[in-house]
Formats: sequence, C-alpha cells, structure tokens
Amino acid sequence: MGELIVTTFDWVPETPRGYVRDLRLCWALEEAGLPYRVEGVPFHSRDAGHFSHQPFGQVPWLTDGDISIFESGAILLYLGERSEVLMPADPHRRLEVIEWLFAALNSVEMASLPWSLFHFAGDTHVTPGKQTLDNFLASRLQHLESILAQREWLAGTFSIADIAMADVLRLVDRFDGLAQSPTCREYISRAMARPAFVKAHADQLAFYAAAD
Amino acid sequence: MGELIVTTFDWVPETPRGYVRDLRLCWALEEAGLPYRVEGVPFHSRDAGHFSHQPFGQVPWLTDGDISIFESGAILLYLGERSEVLMPADPHRRLEVIEWLFAALNSVEMASLPWSLFHFAGDTHVTPGKQTLDNFLASRLQHLESILAQREWLAGTFSIADIAMADVLRLVDRFDGLAQSPTCREYISRAMARPAFVKAHADQLAFYAAAD
Repeated sequence: MGELIVTTFDWVPETPRGYVRDLRLCWALEEAGLPYRVEGVPFHSRDAGHFSHQPFGQVPWLTDGDISIFESGAILLYLGERSEVLMPADPHRRLEVIEWLFAALNSVEMASLPWSLFHFAGDTHVTPGKQTLDNFLASRLQHLESILAQREWLAGTFSIADIAMADVLRLVDRFDGLAQSPTCREYISRAMARPAFVKAHADQLAFYAAAD
Repeated sequence: MGELIVTTFDWVPETPRGYVRDLRLCWALEEAGLPYRVEGVPFHSRDAGHFSHQPFGQVPWLTDGDISIFESGAILLYLGERSEVLMPADPHRRLEVIEWLFAALNSVEMASLPWSLFHFAGDTHVTPGKQTLDNFLASRLQHLESILAQREWLAGTFSIADIAMADVLRLVDRFDGLAQSPTCREYISRAMARPAFVKAHADQLAFYAAAD
C-alpha cells in the first residue's frame, strides 16, 4: 500500500461543510488507523486533471501509490478489503457488509439525497411527483426503523456499511426528516459518538475554516 | 456454487414490465452462461419471509445454496467475482469495474430514478427543487456523454458496470431524457443489442405475460 491521499475541494460554501463526502473516507481511515493526508483541489475551476481522477468533476477520490479511485462507495469497499475493522474477511459476513453498503447508497440515499435537494432549494411545493418522492423516502425509513430496532449495526459489527448509512441519514436529520424515525436517530447518534467520526468531522470543519 | 435462483415479484402492473430490477441479474447470468431459474414472490402480500430476504420488501434477491443476497448492485458484484466475463480478476481492472458500478448506482441513478418518479406521476410542475433535480441529472449526463464518446464500454471491456449503467439510462430514455445525449443513446443501443440482454428482457416480459 502506498501513501493514502484523500482529495477533496480546497473550499466549499458554508452549507455543505461537515457533509462533504470525503468525510466518509476519512472516517473509515480513522476507524482503521490507516495513515493518510487530505489534499485540496480547486472548487471554482475544475481542470482536465480533476476530471481524469473524477469523471463527474466531483470529490472525493483516493490515491494509493499509482492507484486512483473515485466513488465513495467504491473507496469504502477498497478500504474495507484492507482492514478487518471496516469489513470482516469471513465470506458470509463480508457479503452482509456489501449488501448493506449498496442499500445505503442505492436504496436509501437514492431517495434521501434528491429529497434533500428540495430542502436546499427551500422548495415547499406539494406536487404529485414530490409526494411520490416523499413516500419513497418514508417507505425506506420505515423499513430501516424496523431493522435498526433489532441491531446495533447493520452487519453485526460496525463496518463501512454503517459509515455510508449513518452519513446518508445525517443529511436527512439535518432537515428534520427523521422526526418519525427515533431508532434511526439513535443509530446516527451512536455512529457520531465514535471517536473516528468526531475526528474526521472536526478535521473537515477545520480544513474549510482555514481555507476562508 | 449451489443452484442460482433469482426471486422477483410474481406479477407487476404493465408500466414496470421490462424494467423490473431482476433484469440486471438475469442479464448478467446470461452473459456469464451461468444456469439459474427465476421464482416469483407475491407482489400484493409481502410476508415476513419476503422481508427476511429483502428488508425493504423489494425485489430481486439471489439465493446460491445457503447464501441469500439482496441489492442488485451487491448481487452484480457477487456474480462478477464468479465470472471473468462480468469482471476481470486483474486488480486494477477490477477496481475500474467497481468504481463504475457505484457510479451507475450512486452518481447517475441517484439523479435519474427520482427524476423518473416525476414522469411516472405525470408531474410537469416547474419548482425550484425540481429544477435542481433536473440540473443534477443534466450535469451527470453531460459528463457521461464525454466519457462514452471515448470508449465502447465503461471499464475497457463489457462488465457488470455496463449492465448497471445501461439499465439506469434505459429508464431515462423511456421518458425522452436522453434527447441531448446521443452518445448515451448509442451506448444503450449497443448494450441492448447483446444477446444476453435480448433474452433476459424477453424472458421478463414472458414471465409477466404468463402471470396475467
């Protein structure tokens, strides 16, 4: 393994601070005790070099020697394969982690992130499509509420699946979308109390405070 | 490897036919030449047995002997690890496939599926949140258009990443969302011309026609 470098934007507006997706990587790296550093790439001018690492012009990406990976889900899986703290090597338990990682990103965040875009835009219009989207998220949260009532972490022990799911739910909670989901709120409180989250979150806020 | 069984709904309304997510699995299984069969689970009454396999009450799931996996992304990865036709074993190329698999599900589908919900609802209201969602999808498609102009398949050769991405884009095209994305349209035409897609798609339509 080479030197691990997490690349994120060198500056972001106030609103996304504490929620930029490099947090998912830094949180995992802190949990695993893997040394890494964070580098900034211009937020305002995204050049060909940026797109060669992240084809959608987004962040983060991870470099590990001559390897460069984008998509926080893919990076969490990459790190999970390097640390049993993040993902057990046992094939059955590994599968459980992977299905819950995809569930966080493709079953829950696929509903919650678009829902949050309406909140960011201050949009309170009630239209048929918006109601469908609201119901889509409510259904996902309702089922998740039942699941989390029976377990501390999604795949038995804490894993990359919880990093993804807790970070996804944190943004829902920001807009008070977990009012009917007390068990989900307890789950994110547990996750956010972990020293690795606390450090990664504080580091992101400090990184952007220093950039102003 | 045990007997591979894909479980999907035993019946669905007309609208989603040809688009139910078991298609992604059957397409992959056909590409790999792995024998499998499809089983139906009640669409109208989802019991505890259903939720024990798929905690959101959705489909599909895959069983392989005593293993049961949900989330089509996780299942594609599971099948990819069993067939080099679906995902090369070379570590660098495998990583490329995995990042594009997550890109399909968490960068593109996270924008496109919610966008399609507004179309399914016949909702044409222009509100600030909806405009943000439209712009979110347009930006993803614009970057994808540049990427696909340079390559036949996302990760060098055809892989599970293309199964996911092409199926995601097919639903956008259904609502004429690729009008400004001719290269994406050519890409899905290439993907849909593959005999494995043609068979899996025809089989899904026949399965539901027989259920009426």
